[in-house]
Order: sequence, then structure tokens, then C-alpha cells
Amino acid sequence: MGVVVSLEDRKSGSASLKPLLTLVAGDMERVNRTILSRAGSDVAMIPEIANHLIDSGGKRLRPMLTLASAGMFGFEGEHHVTLAAAVEFMHTATLLHDDVVDESDLRRGKPAARLIWGNQASVLVGDFLLGQAFRMMVDVGSLDCLQVLSDAAAVIAEGEVMQLAAAKNTATTEDEYLAVIKAKTAALFAAACEVGAIVADQDGSVRAALRSFGTNLGLAFQLVDDVLDYGGSAKDLGKEIGDDFREGKITLPIVLAYRRGTGESRAFFDRTLMQGEIRDGDLDTALAHLHGTEALADTVQRARHYGAVARDALAPLPDSAEKRALLEAVDFCIERVT
Amino acid sequence: MGVVVSLEDRKSGSASLKPLLTLVAGDMERVNRTILSRAGSDVAMIPEIANHLIDSGGKRLRPMLTLASAGMFGFEGEHHVTLAAAVEFMHTATLLHDDVVDESDLRRGKPAARLIWGNQASVLVGDFLLGQAFRMMVDVGSLDCLQVLSDAAAVIAEGEVMQLAAAKNTATTEDEYLAVIKAKTAALFAAACEVGAIVADQDGSVRAALRSFGTNLGLAFQLVDDVLDYGGSAKDLGKEIGDDFREGKITLPIVLAYRRGTGESRAFFDRTLMQGEIRDGDLDTALAHLHGTEALADTVQRARHYGAVARDALAPLPDSAEKRALLEAVDFCIERVT
Repeated sequence: MGVVVSLEDRKSGSASLKPLLTLVAGDMERVNRTILSRAGSDVAMIPEIANHLIDSGGKRLRPMLTLASAGMFGFEGEHHVTLAAAVEFMHTATLLHDDVVDESDLRRGKPAARLIWGNQASVLVGDFLLGQAFRMMVDVGSLDCLQVLSDAAAVIAEGEVMQLAAAKNTATTEDEYLAVIKAKTAALFAAACEVGAIVADQDGSVRAALRSFGTNLGLAFQLVDDVLDYGGSAKDLGKEIGDDFREGKITLPIVLAYRRGTGESRAFFDRTLMQGEIRDGDLDTALAHLHGTEALADTVQRARHYGAVARDALAPLPDSAEKRALLEAVDFCIERVT
Repeated sequence: MGVVVSLEDRKSGSASLKPLLTLVAGDMERVNRTILSRAGSDVAMIPEIANHLIDSGGKRLRPMLTLASAGMFGFEGEHHVTLAAAVEFMHTATLLHDDVVDESDLRRGKPAARLIWGNQASVLVGDFLLGQAFRMMVDVGSLDCLQVLSDAAAVIAEGEVMQLAAAKNTATTEDEYLAVIKAKTAALFAAACEVGAIVADQDGSVRAALRSFGTNLGLAFQLVDDVLDYGGSAKDLGKEIGDDFREGKITLPIVLAYRRGTGESRAFFDRTLMQGEIRDGDLDTALAHLHGTEALADTVQRARHYGAVARDALAPLPDSAEKRALLEAVDFCIERVT
């Protein structure tokens, strides 16, 4: 019954997610129970699909952020658990809809829900989970939390549409790409942190600090994900790579490689990503361009920048085990790649 | 700029939607302005798609229910306008997702958004509108309203999944079909009415009365829609019919015709609706079975039943122009078909 939190194995760095996991372990058990009970429905397809995703071994980073943000101020009770579960439901709903939009076949190494149950069910179960998330927020009864999370829901969807509109445009600027991931990834990280501060009854400056921490951690996290999809900055082989390339996704490594590239490399990215005409060996060519322009290494540098901003956002807050664990989580997120 | 409320022309009956339209006309102007402003986004595709649907001449019955329910108690202010717009956004989001799920080509006689902008954009803009709807509810600041509408959001999605799971099952019972439309259609009618009572600060019995009114009006409305899709109970020709048949949708007319039918007619519906094998002339055969078993006329009778329940739900409330207009709207919804 327990939902396993799968930790990626430690790589070269020294930072670990373990302190965070240990601190929130008890509350995460409660979050997992809440998730399982709130994903229930007499309509059998709903728990089937929800559990397929929920059991699939995501890191559950977002709910952990809510728990740690509340725990930092000694909050005890139920509300942070309910909100953490609501945040995870919002994330799960987004994943279900994303897979439909991206026509993805795999999610966390398992067949995407849409392949098993169809696009239709994925859209509708996503809607159900979003509705349940709002119900859970209403149970908590904090209008401030509702505002933060409903803002996030609208902004996330806006970011997804922005990305769709910009899709396959190799001329995307770094700023444009940042605006997309700020909306589609960082907004939920920010909200997850901020609602932790809200339930713990913290004032506006603390809320702002945690919000800023979440935003910048989210940006760093997404940029590192972008690099990992190309095998990491150091040609870290042995995991499946190139999904973004095959789906024609414009991520920061591509943005940088394209802007820094030659006429020849631009023609290559236009053909493969804009026209979607991918031939054997093209992924290797793409990797050569990405490494040749230092695009992957510099995307990691950008991630380090946002990680540093995240750390400074927390600086004014009093020392606590949770604060130290969150700071280490920033490093962990970045060191995944190095 | 103005959004036209298209009234279906009067048919044989004597009831009219005009009293309701006249009473809420001023507030509906404000609802339309709110809708246009809240569907705005810097991401151009969002207002394009939203306005495509919003301008397409729906009756806006749901927001009118909210306005009239609040107006019945002399409520003045802004909150009922904001909630009415939020209700319409929830409805619009559902339409966008429904068209993707049903693979529909037309919506209110215009090409479905998914045909113009694609399924992907339809899913994501639906998500955006739902997020905006929750933002607007948060602006109103009533946790009771948020509870009613978030319950509705989850229940609607649950009903859609239920329908998907039951799709193409000709053995569906009337009770099972009722459970589906209670969730996917009546829940939003009920919520639209109830939040009107809530903002007007009415007690639990008034809330329950309006909720019951909305539920039963919604059921009657959907059943009449089901009949209209087969041209009405009196072979009312001249409008495009048979969409539900072509999409293999099991609606109450089919449920009744199947249960009352012969082995031959059941084999016919199994082939056309379950196996989806539709040949020339099959719609005419279906109509012959539907008329031969009185399935259409009796579906209208069922609608009359729910209309009567809706009227009695309002009976204890004091007389007012709004109450009378709502009662007449029930008759209008049913007389559309006769």
C-alpha cells in the first residue's frame, strides 16, 4: 500500500535529498494516505489511472516542499498534509494532460496512461484530479492558499499554451524559454512552498522568501532536467536520452546551441526540430552541436545561477533542520547532472 | 464587442425565456464584460480560442441561473456577476475537453475549436479557463461558494469518465444514464443556482431549494437535448440531427428503445452503436425504432417529470419576478421540443 519514494542514486556531488526525506517522512506517509483516499471513486477507471501515475515512483518533490516549508515553523496539524496532497494532484493532472498534448508514450519509464486507457480518459481523469485538488484546498479553508494555488493553476496552463504556441520555433530566445518554464514548472514549486508558509501563519516577507525559493528551485530543476534529457553535460551515458529531441521540444540547450551555431547547425536544427524530419544519426549530430557550443554545460551554469538565487531567498529565515535540508535539496537537484 | 445571446425561436409552446433574459439583462452585460476580460492573456491563442466559443451564441443559461438566483433576494453588488462568469468558464472548459474526448467536429454549428487550433490547444485552454474560474471564485472570497463549485468540478469530471466507461454499452439502464447526466450536466446547473443563494446570504433551506431546482432543470434540459438530437418527438425536421447516433452515444431515447425493442432492433443498435458500424439509411432505421417504441415521446415525458420536480423545489420561496421567470424557463426548456 505504501508509495515508494524513489531516490535517484547519488552521483558525483556531495549533496543529498536524504535530510529532506527524513524530516518529512512521517508527514509524507500521511500525504500518501490522503492521495490514495482522494484518488478514490466509484468510477473504477479513476483510481486505476490515478494510481498508475501515483505509484510510478515520482520523487514527490513538490509535496515535500510544502511539508518542509510548514515544518520550518514548527507547524503541526493536518492542513499542510492536505495541501501537499493537493499540490501533488495538480502536478499529476498536469502530467496526464501533458502526455496527451505531447503524444508521449512513456512517463517515468512506464507506458503513459494515455497508451493504456486512451487520451480521452487521460484528459478527464486529469480534470477530476484538478477538481479534487480544489476540493481539498477548500477543506483547508484558507483563502490565501486558494488564491496562491488557483493562480498557479491558471499560470501553469497559460505556460503550456505559450509553449505550444512557441513549439518548434528554433528562434526562441532564452528569455522566452525562461518565461515558459517559469509558468509551467516553477509556478507550482513556488506555490508549493508558499502555501507551507501560509498554513504556518507566516507573514508576507516569509511567504515571499519561500515563494522566491520555490520559483528559482523550479527553474534550476527544469534546466537540469533539460540537460539530463541529452545525457547530462558530461556525456553521462547509460540512460535513455533524446526524448525532447525526438518530440521537437525547444529547451534551453537547443536555444543556446542554435544561437551560438553556424549556418549549417541552424539548418540542422530547423530540419530536425521545426520540420520534424529526423533521420538515423541525427541525435548524435545534435549532441555534437550541443557539446561543441558548450550549450549543455552552460545550461547547467544557468541552473547554478537560479540555485544560488534560491539559496539567497532563504537566507533571512532562521536556521532550522528544514531550512538546511531545503538548501541541500537545491544542490542535490543541480548535482543530479554533474 | 457585445456578446449576443441567441434565443432559439419560439416553437409551439407558450413559455418564453424572455422574462428571465429581461430581468438579468443588465447583469448579463457585466458578466459578458467579465468573461471577455478574464479570457484575456498575453498568449494570443488563449483569447482566440476562448472567444471562438464564447462568441458562438450559446444561451448562457447557467450564468443566468446564478444571476436570477441572487436577484431573487434583491442581491446587488459584484459577486453574483463574478460567480456567473466563473460558472460559464467552467462550462466552456468542459465543452473544450468534451469536443476532444468525443472527437466532435462541430460545436453550436461552428467548427469545434479542436479542428481549428488542435486537440492540444483545446485541452490546455480548457485547463486555463478552469484555473481562471477558480481565481474568480477566490476573488469573491466565499468558501461556501468555492466548496459548491469545486465539488461540481470534480463531479462533472467524474460523470464524464463514467460516461466514457459506459460508452457504447447499449445495455445501460435508465438509472445508470441518469447518474451520468446528473453528474455531467445537472451538477453545474445545481451549483450555478446554489451559489446565487449563497452570495445573497440565504439559509440552508433556500440553498437546498435552489440546488434542487437546478439539478432537476439540468436533467430536464439534458433529456430534451437528447430528444432534439433525433429531431424532436414529433419528427421536427429541418435541423441537423443524428450527431449522437453517429458518435455512438447512448442517451435515454436509445436506452428506452433498446430495452423495449425486439431482438432485431437490439441487434441493430448493437451493430451501429456498440460496434460503430453505420451504413447508409441507418439513421432512418434508428428513428423508426425510436418512434416505434415511443422512446422519444417518453423521454420528453421523463423531462416533464424532472421539470415538475424543479418547479416544486421553488414552491416554498416567496413570489418574485425572478422566481416566476425561472419557473417559466423550466417550461421553455421542455417546450423547445414540442
